[in-house]
This record gives sequence, structure tokens and C-alpha cells, in this order.
Amino acid sequence: MNDTAATTDLLAVTLAQTLAQEHVADIVETLNEQDIATIAHVLGELPFERAVEVLDQPEFGAAAEALALLPEGRAGALLSAMSADRAADVFQEFDEETAARLSGRIDRQTRSDLKKLLAYPEHSAGSIMTTEFVSVPSSWSVQQTIDHIRRVERSRETVYAIYVLDAATRKLVRAVSLRRLIAGDPDAPVESVVPAHKPITVTPEIDREEVARLITKYDLLAVPVVDDDDHVIGIVTFDDVIDAMIAETTEDVQKLGGMEALDQPYNEIGFLGMIRKRAGWLSILLLGEMLTASVMQHFEGELEKAIVLTLFIPLIMSSGGNSGSQATSLIIRALALREVTLKDWWRVALREVPTGLTLGTILGAIGVVRIILWQWAGFYDYGPHWVLVAATVGAALLGIVTFGSLAGSMLPFALKRLGFDPASASAPFVATLVDVTGLIIYFGVAALILTGTML
Amino acid sequence: MNDTAATTDLLAVTLAQTLAQEHVADIVETLNEQDIATIAHVLGELPFERAVEVLDQPEFGAAAEALALLPEGRAGALLSAMSADRAADVFQEFDEETAARLSGRIDRQTRSDLKKLLAYPEHSAGSIMTTEFVSVPSSWSVQQTIDHIRRVERSRETVYAIYVLDAATRKLVRAVSLRRLIAGDPDAPVESVVPAHKPITVTPEIDREEVARLITKYDLLAVPVVDDDDHVIGIVTFDDVIDAMIAETTEDVQKLGGMEALDQPYNEIGFLGMIRKRAGWLSILLLGEMLTASVMQHFEGELEKAIVLTLFIPLIMSSGGNSGSQATSLIIRALALREVTLKDWWRVALREVPTGLTLGTILGAIGVVRIILWQWAGFYDYGPHWVLVAATVGAALLGIVTFGSLAGSMLPFALKRLGFDPASASAPFVATLVDVTGLIIYFGVAALILTGTML
Repeated sequence: MNDTAATTDLLAVTLAQTLAQEHVADIVETLNEQDIATIAHVLGELPFERAVEVLDQPEFGAAAEALALLPEGRAGALLSAMSADRAADVFQEFDEETAARLSGRIDRQTRSDLKKLLAYPEHSAGSIMTTEFVSVPSSWSVQQTIDHIRRVERSRETVYAIYVLDAATRKLVRAVSLRRLIAGDPDAPVESVVPAHKPITVTPEIDREEVARLITKYDLLAVPVVDDDDHVIGIVTFDDVIDAMIAETTEDVQKLGGMEALDQPYNEIGFLGMIRKRAGWLSILLLGEMLTASVMQHFEGELEKAIVLTLFIPLIMSSGGNSGSQATSLIIRALALREVTLKDWWRVALREVPTGLTLGTILGAIGVVRIILWQWAGFYDYGPHWVLVAATVGAALLGIVTFGSLAGSMLPFALKRLGFDPASASAPFVATLVDVTGLIIYFGVAALILTGTML
Repeated sequence: MNDTAATTDLLAVTLAQTLAQEHVADIVETLNEQDIATIAHVLGELPFERAVEVLDQPEFGAAAEALALLPEGRAGALLSAMSADRAADVFQEFDEETAARLSGRIDRQTRSDLKKLLAYPEHSAGSIMTTEFVSVPSSWSVQQTIDHIRRVERSRETVYAIYVLDAATRKLVRAVSLRRLIAGDPDAPVESVVPAHKPITVTPEIDREEVARLITKYDLLAVPVVDDDDHVIGIVTFDDVIDAMIAETTEDVQKLGGMEALDQPYNEIGFLGMIRKRAGWLSILLLGEMLTASVMQHFEGELEKAIVLTLFIPLIMSSGGNSGSQATSLIIRALALREVTLKDWWRVALREVPTGLTLGTILGAIGVVRIILWQWAGFYDYGPHWVLVAATVGAALLGIVTFGSLAGSMLPFALKRLGFDPASASAPFVATLVDVTGLIIYFGVAALILTGTML
């Protein structure tokens, strides 16, 4: 062993000793800043139980890479001891050769659990559930159940929700919380402490967003995932759901910004990956925006006669985009929270039209005042027909803001109806839609007011 | 009693009987759709414990209104039995007269708890904490602790986190989970099952976003709120944090859309409230956008000589806005997740410049190809200098997209540095910033390329 390797070794051993006392989340934070050789060393040196705890944290980014570097025996033992949902995540990150090499080193039970978990579609309840939950037959007593929990506590992701199964068919009958269980009479049957209503359940195919909605609505610690025969095949816990909610919010914010969701932290995505996620939408929006050039070409005659009209094009277009972007983000969020549903589209439309008219009147008035002020103060001369120019700008703002509010609020409904994520209705997308129409409205209003004088 | 009132009464009684068997979240959903008279009636008819459960749900919108309509005795008893954090929320919604009337009807302990809770600033840990938690002196045994939990279970918001206090000073020593407690030896001291490290705590003034971050990072069921002497004054549970996270996401999405956060569901906010939340930012953005008119006035000479330049103004401006909006939402989210911090601004800048240059090259190329195609196909004649026009548009897109990416990524840092919420850097805000500079870049590039030929 050469000197550098020896130094790394010594550092890793010291680091492992220091970290062994820390909170697992802090160990993860420290490890995430080390290079992969050090991380693997530390995982080798940490007490086994602590190493498992570290690997069980979804925030620990280098789990797959580090396990690939460890001796096969230790890696296999760690993978077998990890929670099944995390082990499945790690296996998805392994290259084929590592996956094949290490799957021979994990125990039979874990291997069969992993196989099932890896078969579910991404972001489904099945893909984020864990198979380590507590279930007892309905024939047991409260004390028997508590004794069972005491024995299996260390190997379960949560013991706060206990699933009571029919003693014969093993179908899910009730769910009971640990708090109710320990408050019950030890000698009574476990059925004496269960609630009156059947538990909320999900199927493995359901999207994680729906699971999050149920856990939030019913204030659950975990929700059981059941198959067609009402057998519990896993549970999704609230902390998995919090992680999923944070990931969904990140996706939504990035989509709202007019790009594809990164799916990776900003610091970790490569240069080409970043370009790929951003260039697509930018190019599509540019192609859409080219329609504005066509509209402008169409009105070239008017532009040449009244060049003063061009001065207000950016201002008018952006006001339409801004009012559209407001309405869109309002509706995207209201749809996500189920404050409104698809069938409410006309109710929203009836609300956005008067709102848009009011906002348009306010902006139109500001626009008119600006032109009058500049004319009076002598900052700029809008020509002999400046009153008509002011009227054109004011009326165009009124029309465009109203149209923007209406179009912006309807776009998320349209996307949802067509089966897309409403959050794809980004501010840039709405702005592009409204820009083209905005120009047509502007030149239409101009033709109406200015024909015979300036046009 | 007249006939209508009698019918309402009968309906409410029937509804109360039906609902009494439902899950509390479903009762809330049904009640939220009834008128306030029916809701109050149902609350009067439901079994007391169920009525308390309903009132404890933050999703139940009419709690304050309904309690104000109930007989004072029942309202006071319900308020005393509710969890303290929810009762505090309800008191904040009462008008002064109702608050005064009902505060005389609640028990002394609740009144003193409420007084403390209501003193904390909005969105602070103190304002969302509950005072109903389990604490035991460190001198107790495991069995004593479990027996205590069994007795107080019904009156505590959670019993899954137990706070172990110094027997003499009552300072917080350790936190232990119920699962570890029941797995322990009943006769051993409670200190035998506590973890090695001190619990994570927060002070009451800390923002709920920070509490959410800690609960998520350390996978906690609850975090204790301590005063300066390390006495536990309350706890914030994970379900309060999920609710807070959903509210924060709604605020952020609405701010990203270029408006003030509504603070109320879309369906419930009044017309004037809606206008107030939206008109402010729209007007400010319009005033900012007026700078584009000033820039255009400045370049009026160029515009008159080369009217073909105006055709591409919308297209070029929006590309700058779109690339800025992408960069802004990326950085807002990375800041919220602490993937980057304030001191990383230059690292981000060093990354966004090459990204912007690459994206700008792609968009510039598309713009150039568009002009060449239209010219060749004869859709439009850009004049004898059409090659120079294409070069101007291409170079301007390159410059503007690069500038947009850089400005968009730096704006959230600047806002955060100045003490504002980075999420206020909305897509419309960035677009307005970039529009003015975009026009200057466009006309600058045009002057460089076209002087001597078209200009």
C-alpha cells in the first residue's frame, strides 16, 4: 500500500469513528461532501447498524457508487439489511455488471422483495412502498400484538401503523395505530381497539401524488398498498411522501419556468443534460413566437404609416403575458389542491372575464396617463393625433389583459383535459400564446381608432 | 319555529347521524359544502368527541363561523377540548365581540395556552406548535412512562415522541420514540432507551419553513419548541409541517406567476381581494415595461430607416424572457432546497454563462434558418441586405439568451441578499428586466452590423 492510500485509510477510519456518534442525517451531510473513495472507506469502517442507517437515507447520494466499491460480502449484507424500497432505488442506479455481481450476495427474501418493487412503474405507490411493515392476525390479543412489535421493531420501517389481517384469508381487515393499541386492555382481542371504519388503501399502480393527497387529507402515518385480493403488499410512509412532495414541487416549479424537470440537483446535472432539458422548450417557444413576425409582416403597411405604434409593442405584449401568467399559476395550483376540478372551467371563465376587464381598465388607464404626461411634459411628441394614440394604447391594454386572463386560466384546463400535466402551462408558454393574439388585438384596435387619420 | 327552520333542523340531525360513522376527513369534506346554518346544527348534533375531531382539522374552513353560532356553553367546551394550535387559529378568525364572549367560556388552562400561542408571529414555529405533548422526568422507568402515555393518550396530539426532562430543572434532556420505548426493558430507567445524541430543537420565533426543513432532514415525527432555558413549550408535528409545506408551495407558485400570494383558496377570495393581489404587480411591471417605450423612442431613427427590424422585436424579447425565466425557477428551487447558498452565486454565474451561450447559439441558428427559408421560399422579402438582417437577428438572439440566463439566475440571489423572498423573482419580473436590456442589445447589434448599409 502506498503512502496516499494509507493516509486516505487513516482519514476514513478517524472520520468513521467521529461520525459514529452523530445523527444519521448529519453523517449523510458530511459524507456527501467527500470523494467516493473516502465514502466507501467510511462505510466499511462504520458499525454495521450505522452504515445501514446511512444507506437508508434517500438524501445519501453516493449509495450505489460506494456499495459497488465495497467488498462483495459486506455490500451484500448491507443491501440485505437496508429497507427494501431504498435497496430497490440503489439497484436501479447500479450498472448491469454490478447489479448481477451483488444480487448473488443478498439474501433470498430481499432478492424476491426487490424483484417485485423494481417491476412497478416510476413514481407509482409500488415503486416507493416498503415491504417492512407490521401485520397481525385478527385472532391475536392486544398484548400478543405488542409483544410481536417489540420483537420485530428493529426490522420495520414503521411500527406506528399495525395492519390487522383476517386470520384465515389474510385479507386486510383494519388498521390500528400503536397509540390506540397501547391504550387498550392487554388481554382484550386486538379487534377491540381497531377503529370502526375500514382503512384507506391504495393499489400499487397509483401515482405518488395521489398517495400524498390521501396521507395529507387523512393525516396518516402510512397508507397500505393492497393487491386485487386485499392482501397488503407494502406500505408508503409519511416521510416517503414528504420526499415525494418535495420532488413534485421541484418538478412543477421547473416546468412553470418553461423547461423540462431536471430530475437531478442543480449541482449534479451535467452540462449536456442541462442544455437538453432547457433547449427543447426554448426552441419550441421560439418557433411559436415566430408567428409574431408573421403578424408584424402582415401589418407592415400600418407600421410604416404610423411608426409611433411600434413604440408600444413590447409594453402591450408583456402586459398580456403577465396577466396570463398570473391566471395560469392560480389555476395550476387550484387544480393541484383540488379547489377546482375540470368541470369548473366555465365557473373560472365567468370569474376571470370580469377580473380581466377590471385589471385591463387599471393598466389601460396607466398607459393613457403615461402618454398624456410625456406629451404635456414635452419628453416626446406623439404627433398631432396623440390623443388617438393614447386611446389606442389604452383600449388595446384593456383587450389584451382581459384576453390574457381568460386564456391563461383556460390553458391548464385544456392541458389537463388532453391528458398533460397542467403545470406544463408555463409562464413562457402562456406569454407566447398571448403575444400573437395580443399583436392582432393591438393592430385591430389601431385600425378601428386610427383609420382615416393616421392609417 | 317556522317550517323552513324545522326542515333544516331535521336535515342537520339526519346528516349528523350519518356522518358520525364516517372518517373525520370525509365529514369535513361534506360539511365544507353545506351552508353555515347547517354546519352549526351538525356540530351541535354530532357526538362531542367527533365534533372536536372535526374542529381539529385545519381543512375545516367554517370552524370560527360555526362556533360563533353555537350555544356559548357548547362552543366553550369544544374550544377547550380542541388542540391548542387549532383553537388559536380559530380565535384569530373570530371578530372581537365573539372572541371576548367565548374566551370567558373556555377553561383556565386553555385560555393561558391560547394567550401564549397568539403572541407568536405568523408562520413561526410558536404559532403552529401544539402544547399537548408527552413529557416525563428522567427518573422514571420505561413501564412508568408507558403507563403515563396510556393515561394521557387521548388528550395528546402525538404520543410517538416522548420528551425526557431533567427531574430537577425540567430542562429537556433527550427525546425518545414510542417504538424504542416499548422495545425496552419495562423495569429499566427511561434513560436506558434514549438515543446518544441530544434532540433537534427549535425556538418559537423560527420560521415554519425551517421547521419543515429540519423535520424532513431528520425524518422526525415532531420537533420540540424550547425557550431560552431549554424548557419545552410545545411541539410541531409532521402533519402540521405537511400543511405548512403545501401552503408555502401555493405561495411560491403564485409569486412565480407574478402576483401576491392569495392566502385564501381560489374559490373563497372575494372579487376585490383578487384584484388587489393581482393589480399591484401588473401595474409595477407595466411601469417597468414603459422603459421599453423609452428605448424604442431613442432608436426611432434606426426604426424608420430599417422597418424590417421591428418585425423581430417580439421574438427576440420573448426569447430573452424565456431563458431568464428558466434560469430563475431553477435557482429559486435550488436555493429553497439548499442545493446552492448565497455564497455560491459566482459558481452559478460561471455555469450559466456557457449554458446561455450554448442555448443562444441554438436559438440564433434557428432564427437565421427561419429568415433564410422565408427569403428563399419567397414568403417574404427582407430586402437586398437580407443576409445582414439574418446575421443581426442571430447575433442578437445569442446575446440576449446569454444575458437572460445570467440575469435570471442572479436575480434570486440578489433578492435573497436584500432580504426578500427569492420566489418573488417571478417569470414576469425577469421578463421585464430582460426586455429593456434585450432591446438595447438588439439595436446595438443592429448598429454594429448594419451601419453603412441599412442604417
